Amino acid sequence: MSSASDPVENLRTLIRCPSVTPAEGGALGALEAMLKPLGFETERPVFREDGTPDIENLHARLGSKGPHLAFAGHTDVVPTGDESAWSHPPFAAEISDGMMYGRGAVDMKGGIACFVAAVARHVQKYGPPKGSISFLITGDEEGPAINGTKKLLKWAADRGETWDGCVLGEPTNPETIGDMIKIGRRGSISGRVTVSGVQGHVAYPHLADNPLRGIVQVAEALLDPPLDDGTDQFQPTNLEITTIDTGNPATNVIPASATLAFNIRFNDRWTADSLKAEIEARVARGAAATRLRPGKSAALKAEVEWPTPVSPVFLTRDETLISTVAGAVEAVTGRMPALSTSGGTSDARFIKDYCPVVEFGLVGRTMHMIDECVAVEDLETLTAIYERVIADWFAGRP
Amino acid sequence: MSSASDPVENLRTLIRCPSVTPAEGGALGALEAMLKPLGFETERPVFREDGTPDIENLHARLGSKGPHLAFAGHTDVVPTGDESAWSHPPFAAEISDGMMYGRGAVDMKGGIACFVAAVARHVQKYGPPKGSISFLITGDEEGPAINGTKKLLKWAADRGETWDGCVLGEPTNPETIGDMIKIGRRGSISGRVTVSGVQGHVAYPHLADNPLRGIVQVAEALLDPPLDDGTDQFQPTNLEITTIDTGNPATNVIPASATLAFNIRFNDRWTADSLKAEIEARVARGAAATRLRPGKSAALKAEVEWPTPVSPVFLTRDETLISTVAGAVEAVTGRMPALSTSGGTSDARFIKDYCPVVEFGLVGRTMHMIDECVAVEDLETLTAIYERVIADWFAGRP
Repeated sequence: MSSASDPVENLRTLIRCPSVTPAEGGALGALEAMLKPLGFETERPVFREDGTPDIENLHARLGSKGPHLAFAGHTDVVPTGDESAWSHPPFAAEISDGMMYGRGAVDMKGGIACFVAAVARHVQKYGPPKGSISFLITGDEEGPAINGTKKLLKWAADRGETWDGCVLGEPTNPETIGDMIKIGRRGSISGRVTVSGVQGHVAYPHLADNPLRGIVQVAEALLDPPLDDGTDQFQPTNLEITTIDTGNPATNVIPASATLAFNIRFNDRWTADSLKAEIEARVARGAAATRLRPGKSAALKAEVEWPTPVSPVFLTRDETLISTVAGAVEAVTGRMPALSTSGGTSDARFIKDYCPVVEFGLVGRTMHMIDECVAVEDLETLTAIYERVIADWFAGRP
Repeated sequence: MSSASDPVENLRTLIRCPSVTPAEGGALGALEAMLKPLGFETERPVFREDGTPDIENLHARLGSKGPHLAFAGHTDVVPTGDESAWSHPPFAAEISDGMMYGRGAVDMKGGIACFVAAVARHVQKYGPPKGSISFLITGDEEGPAINGTKKLLKWAADRGETWDGCVLGEPTNPETIGDMIKIGRRGSISGRVTVSGVQGHVAYPHLADNPLRGIVQVAEALLDPPLDDGTDQFQPTNLEITTIDTGNPATNVIPASATLAFNIRFNDRWTADSLKAEIEARVARGAAATRLRPGKSAALKAEVEWPTPVSPVFLTRDETLISTVAGAVEAVTGRMPALSTSGGTSDARFIKDYCPVVEFGLVGRTMHMIDECVAVEDLETLTAIYERVIADWFAGRP
């Protein structure tokens, strides 16, 4: 067995590279050193943009013909938080009671370590795959994600790369390996409402128009009733108010304006346009409710802005890819995983524009926390699942 | 006629002293120079406190026996704002089309100028009053009001001064001189509510507890239903939310906590304690309403603080003082003024602890504004009213 076929060894090597975004920390280099002996051709494109740090990425391909299976992921990790609060140092990869501790253990150096081991075992048993296998690994997933997977995909596509399916190795299982595969994701949209009234003295409210009365009514209209109760494939659309701000330090002054920001995770009942129209109608309704209150002037105005790009809803419909991954999970663990669209966004939102993508990885419970850790046994299990995915996916392709 | 008997001349002198709080600007000196020739004994106590500028004040008394009528006011003025926006310079006291322009014209150098003229005329006609007349004038009414009337009253009382009645010369008339006398004031109380929840990611709201849902419910409970519908002597109690703040810049994060501040102007239906109890009950009701919503955890907490001192409600019950001032207004203008308790606080809240106080002065419409101005005719009218107040008040006392 070459060393790259042992996921525990692979992960130990990766955790010991302190690759907190945007630092490469040696992680991409270590990964490249595992892949080259397996026959991969590697490149390390660096992407830059004004106002963001330069980011290193790794592209590695084994084989030159189709079908072409990609594995996507990231070697960057979130900060450790208070290192002294860790029971094992966050970049030491110490094993204790069957758990390996370290930042990135499950999110997601562990997923990468297992897929590398799975490829190594596949090549050892069967030789090179009948098509191609690529790694698309970024160092900018936990950061702004500007110089990461999105640019790496475009860079590769511009050189003529095409893919037939992709596995993203994020930790998808809530409790136990085999719980959940992610096959899509709700969309995400953020908006901001500014309510303007008339500033004045609290003792003379009839000469003013308090925008906070408007903010409260607008908030009520945004929250109630719920936007929907979910669809077959998706959770209910959910709106969270993320901040309300006024910044008025004077206790005797009615402020001139206030702002409210919100984020909505939306399902396939909505398009970005239909959702914006609904929100704008609710804001207008909240403002109108405020204007109808006795003693208030008609000066109140509520304006909605959409300052950030929409992340659209998506659902992977490639039955072959989904059943290959789900079947491999069932074969190895004996459990049929849920096909979920829950949770936060991931780089799958970029990949889905190029090829079908499913996400499956380790158990996410400790991700981003102090004492992030992975069961050594889970690394073996995930490697076995990935090995089966590779075998079955190529077997199922013409 | 001595020059101090002309209110227009007096006011011109005072406006030309640029006495923006905390600057004395020559105003108290000019006033002292008007009063001394009339027989007043004057002192200029300076009050200081850590963190606030030293403030000059003026105490002037004519006569040494009772009954003792006080006139209270302030020579400090609010800032001019953009001086180039004034049609006449703010410290020039120019007269145009029957109006004298200048910062402090109505708030309240004009009231002081008229009372000085009224005293001068009274002394000319009748000699010294049968009791005493005092001026209690501060340079810290528009500022923090820490080193002003409150300390001046205590300073004088500590020396044995007592008063039988006080006229405060603030601009009490909304539109026309004779509209309104103020005989009391609603109380004022400010509070702050902090709602704490559980921070989290917007994509996993079931793992978080958004405090802004709580803020909205608390705001609703505070605003509705109204606290009361007023009493015979007072306007309805009114609550204004003055600020709501969260300070969460991240569009994908549910914040951990948020704060809301409010101010209440309350009438004689309430004591500070009964009002605090009502507000705390409403906040608890708002928090409970939030906890009842589906899918939210029970972690939400709402806490009320009362960080600033309460300004209690008060009502002057001295029929002699009230009817003397109201009768003088009616005799001079032919109009019976409203006896009001409306509007913002004034130094009457300090004076009422020492003697009965009523407020009557000029028309306040332009106070604190660009182009603050007073009708020259109003100065003559107010002087005539004050002269009558002095004559009738002493005539009505034993």
